Amino acid sequence: MTDAFLDACRAAVGSEHVLTGDQDTAPYLTDWRGRFTGRCRAVLRPADTAQVASLVRLCAGYQVPIVPQGGRTGLVLGSVPDASGTAVVLSLRRLQRIRAIDTFNRTMTVDAGCILYDVQQAALEHGLLFPLSLAAEGSCSIGGNLATNAGGTGVLRYGNTRELCLGLEVVTAQGEVWDSLRGLRKDNTGYDLRDLYIGAEGTLGVITGAVLKLFPQPKAAITALVALASPADALELLKLTESHAGPTLTGYELMSDVCLRLVASHFPELPQPFPERYPQYALLELSSHESEQHGVALLEAAIERALEAGVAQDAVVATSIAQSRALWAIREHIPLAQAAAGNNIKHDISLPISRIADFIDATDARLTHAYPGVQVVCFGHLGDGNLHYNIAPPEGVKHDEFLIEQAAINRIVHDSVADYGGSISAEHGIGALKRDELPRYKSPIELNLMRAVKAALDPLGIMNPGKIL
Amino acid sequence: MTDAFLDACRAAVGSEHVLTGDQDTAPYLTDWRGRFTGRCRAVLRPADTAQVASLVRLCAGYQVPIVPQGGRTGLVLGSVPDASGTAVVLSLRRLQRIRAIDTFNRTMTVDAGCILYDVQQAALEHGLLFPLSLAAEGSCSIGGNLATNAGGTGVLRYGNTRELCLGLEVVTAQGEVWDSLRGLRKDNTGYDLRDLYIGAEGTLGVITGAVLKLFPQPKAAITALVALASPADALELLKLTESHAGPTLTGYELMSDVCLRLVASHFPELPQPFPERYPQYALLELSSHESEQHGVALLEAAIERALEAGVAQDAVVATSIAQSRALWAIREHIPLAQAAAGNNIKHDISLPISRIADFIDATDARLTHAYPGVQVVCFGHLGDGNLHYNIAPPEGVKHDEFLIEQAAINRIVHDSVADYGGSISAEHGIGALKRDELPRYKSPIELNLMRAVKAALDPLGIMNPGKIL
Repeated sequence: MTDAFLDACRAAVGSEHVLTGDQDTAPYLTDWRGRFTGRCRAVLRPADTAQVASLVRLCAGYQVPIVPQGGRTGLVLGSVPDASGTAVVLSLRRLQRIRAIDTFNRTMTVDAGCILYDVQQAALEHGLLFPLSLAAEGSCSIGGNLATNAGGTGVLRYGNTRELCLGLEVVTAQGEVWDSLRGLRKDNTGYDLRDLYIGAEGTLGVITGAVLKLFPQPKAAITALVALASPADALELLKLTESHAGPTLTGYELMSDVCLRLVASHFPELPQPFPERYPQYALLELSSHESEQHGVALLEAAIERALEAGVAQDAVVATSIAQSRALWAIREHIPLAQAAAGNNIKHDISLPISRIADFIDATDARLTHAYPGVQVVCFGHLGDGNLHYNIAPPEGVKHDEFLIEQAAINRIVHDSVADYGGSISAEHGIGALKRDELPRYKSPIELNLMRAVKAALDPLGIMNPGKIL
Repeated sequence: MTDAFLDACRAAVGSEHVLTGDQDTAPYLTDWRGRFTGRCRAVLRPADTAQVASLVRLCAGYQVPIVPQGGRTGLVLGSVPDASGTAVVLSLRRLQRIRAIDTFNRTMTVDAGCILYDVQQAALEHGLLFPLSLAAEGSCSIGGNLATNAGGTGVLRYGNTRELCLGLEVVTAQGEVWDSLRGLRKDNTGYDLRDLYIGAEGTLGVITGAVLKLFPQPKAAITALVALASPADALELLKLTESHAGPTLTGYELMSDVCLRLVASHFPELPQPFPERYPQYALLELSSHESEQHGVALLEAAIERALEAGVAQDAVVATSIAQSRALWAIREHIPLAQAAAGNNIKHDISLPISRIADFIDATDARLTHAYPGVQVVCFGHLGDGNLHYNIAPPEGVKHDEFLIEQAAINRIVHDSVADYGGSISAEHGIGALKRDELPRYKSPIELNLMRAVKAALDPLGIMNPGKIL
């Protein structure tokens, strides 16, 4: 059977890069958490921007839907195709070049398919820092980070992926190459198309390259774990430390005791930081451009003050890289411990920082009222107002059986988020997973503006259909 | 003569806020530098967002063009109407409320008409910092700052206005109110409409309110003036200081000796910082959250190293607030001295930081070749790659007569900017002044994307026509 569209794709990128066999395409069709497997007409693997443009033009001509895909580590089904089998997966993985590093301008120009870890390492090799850091950094691509405006642990000081990007190269939905790879800190020459493509999850065009911001490498990063009586105290400690340490405070993570118990039960080899248990813990990272001594003194002074004021209950300041890694390991093992415990109901939410303590109290109460004994596994990037507020079943209820309550629990949590002026997606995006939630929490005016933008930039509706809108 | 449109406007906002007499409208029609006076059908002065929406609906219904206006301090003719007299000026000046300050979330919700200085002061009264700072801060409105994505002297550390805004309230071109006054650091729920309206210079809708980011107030700000042999050394000093001081370096301004001589001749009462003259000077500001002593020690150590390395020739570190003000006064008097000298040809440009020294050398040479004896008054926010590269006539040529060369000189400077990968508008925007320049420096692809967005959000084309596109 001939297929004129696929033949044209083969002519554009070579037959070996047009995958159609079930075994060949399978690795591209299932989402990261393994919850959903879609189907596709083919997986296309272009080598460079020009080939991406050729393929998008072909897709536009044949009206074939396109699902752009990077490292496929997204958590909201944004980079896998739906079950219809009509779409092609456009894999950016072969676009792997670090095109240029300008140490004096502190910028790096990269292909979209570069793995985040490789970008971090390339910066390090030049004595510079690319501060985007998240759990999937060994697998995710910078193009995917940009398409989802990824967050992570460095946002407090350095901002989201959006703030780390100065310029883009995009293949538009018409298959034209918009080259805006500018390494400029200031540029006010018309509409901010860059930020429109960033976070659009591949629904407006395909990001193929970017100019990233780099930073001076701090001389030392100091980590501390602080034991706390409540989320409210965690917020007081945040304010106290920010006032004291200013922009040297580069990380501030919250973890409840439920999280630490979960980690301890699944990873007993990890050290327990405190002899006693406390309701909450904050993980702080302070980066000094002066010296390790300076950083330690600054962090210890802030913690001392918090202990005196009764805001903190106890604290450990890491005195070696190994100790620092051990403290971070607790935080990093929370999602792994959750996965080991079984499927759970995840929420990636953000709130005004001033309302987080009240939100947690109120939402815990609403859930416990509806589901007595339910376990809330709450942790996250408190400095950015971003919580991973995950729900596990009461003791004795099987994780998989509890998933039947997912929609009802989402409703309770997201309605509470809305009541407290928050967002139902802080750093993961909307994808296909939260698409049907949007109309409940966005005004019709905002949705109509988004639809107008979508229709203007992708009039055929071929770019990642069924995602976001 | 009755005018149904104006009668409807009067019914919406009260007769006293629909100005039509020449004397009443005159203060709204001339641009800040006094170069252009437009005409209008009326000046409309709504009291609040609801009245803005009513007026925009009327304008849409009667197809009357709208020129949104804040403090009218823009430098690119973005906020004044054209000469046709068909448009209304929509003044936001009566929207003056500071709606809320959340000290714990570090956010302030403001009306678009709030004067920047008042916003800064309101933050200060709560012990916080709103870091946007620019020459017009006593007159410009925050809505205008957002509409033009204003820059200023704090961008190095805190970013442009874009980075200082978390949420917007916008009256769309259809007269609907898009309420997105969210105080969230992370929110990935669809397209970044916020950044689309920011910097759109009122051509897509009317910004009526915003949620602004606030910061901890540093304990001390230390200023130094460093004498340098060349722009290249200014860049070396920037890198050296950034590596040494990290994010405590909050300001880095460049001024040539031509600038200082100009200031000295027009403002002889200002002190001269050095007994000798040097080709270039850098004004540094370092902000410490620890103590004044810490800031001074850090800045002195960096300068000491620069002097040892031969990067710096001499330096003055201010030891009092009065001394610091005196150093900043030199920088702030450059535009005033230029204005006193006569009309000159201004350029607000940005470049990759690594290419600035070469750009200055090459462009100075091109200009001197074309216009022997021409004076380049070059200063700006070097830390952001932003230069105000202004051109005054050779000795003996009258300033006003030299303006005849404006288009030719713009061409030389802007072509050179393009050669070095820069932008022809760093922080002032495009407005009507640079509109005809855009097609020379933007690709047709980018212009078409911008036109598609414009047509999608303002299909009647009533929002600030003739600006940007």
